[in-house]
Amino acid sequence: MTRSVEFYFDVGSPASWLAWTQLPAMAERYGAELVNKPVLLGGIFKATGNNTPAALPPKGRYLFRDLARFARRYGVPFTFPPGFPANTLTLMRILTGVQMHRPDDFGACVDVLFRMLWQYGINPEDETTLRDTLGGAGLDADALLALAGQEDVKQALKEATNEAVERGLFGLPTMFVDGEMFWGQDRLDFVREQLESSDA
Amino acid sequence: MTRSVEFYFDVGSPASWLAWTQLPAMAERYGAELVNKPVLLGGIFKATGNNTPAALPPKGRYLFRDLARFARRYGVPFTFPPGFPANTLTLMRILTGVQMHRPDDFGACVDVLFRMLWQYGINPEDETTLRDTLGGAGLDADALLALAGQEDVKQALKEATNEAVERGLFGLPTMFVDGEMFWGQDRLDFVREQLESSDA
Repeated sequence: MTRSVEFYFDVGSPASWLAWTQLPAMAERYGAELVNKPVLLGGIFKATGNNTPAALPPKGRYLFRDLARFARRYGVPFTFPPGFPANTLTLMRILTGVQMHRPDDFGACVDVLFRMLWQYGINPEDETTLRDTLGGAGLDADALLALAGQEDVKQALKEATNEAVERGLFGLPTMFVDGEMFWGQDRLDFVREQLESSDA
Repeated sequence: MTRSVEFYFDVGSPASWLAWTQLPAMAERYGAELVNKPVLLGGIFKATGNNTPAALPPKGRYLFRDLARFARRYGVPFTFPPGFPANTLTLMRILTGVQMHRPDDFGACVDVLFRMLWQYGINPEDETTLRDTLGGAGLDADALLALAGQEDVKQALKEATNEAVERGLFGLPTMFVDGEMFWGQDRLDFVREQLESSDA
């Protein structure tokens, strides 16, 4: 049986970006399937009473330095978009819709949205910029934004977020391997150890 | 010049315990001086608006599993005392007083208090148990509790905690090496990398 790594993420979460830069290669290395779970971080925070660390000024300042240290360790680009934290409802609806209806575009779409925020530092809330970014990556911006407006897509994102809360999530990224939950990109080494273990 | 690792901790913090199990050997390995900074976590939370992760039930449950994973990785004992989070005001006053007035007892006193909570799972708020624990470790419980009641000691703990907040701390443990701040026992690998670096 193929093992899986479930990956709950929101493209508005900088730690989710860092995890995304590492997980596909890690899953491949251990012959595991990466199961992507786009969910809305704002919805998780609302349901659990948790909040973004950036809400506390000293913690927010430290958080940036901390994430930048990991980015250096991983050798990946990292910046902060203006207006953080951004409202990612439209982006996560797009990803939910693409996963449901245009699955072949999913990986490219996740990647371009993550890079838009965390590599190029672009605030994703302006629709013109978003269209340009999607189009520039060879994706059909009109079709993707239309998907984001579909009722089935909106409902699916809501249900995926609720399911995440029911499963015990309180922040992102969160990974599951063999039923074990790992919260945070700073726990990728434990994800790797779990994949290395003989529990398969 | 000897390099230093500053270690801000409260014995009521399980992550501080895990850091304490690793830092003395790490500092020694790199020829650095471990500078212990007892402070009151409750005071830091009050000043910064931060709060214990255990205040959120799903996060609290995960936190225990997460800390237990690190304890297994380090090969050190780990349990939870009943009544967590405990009021550690008296304990931290004892450590502050010992550091000021009986410095030769400091290391043993820190160790016995940490182990009381996190190895033996004893709630530290009962004075009889606390006396027994200190006495059992060969420490003079009467003298230590008298120190905890001294005005200069109470004031010193308050000032150390305020200084920590002014320095940007919002949680414990927090370490500084070469002016770089590292929050959390899960950042000990970055502390090690800093000690390995050529910034000395």
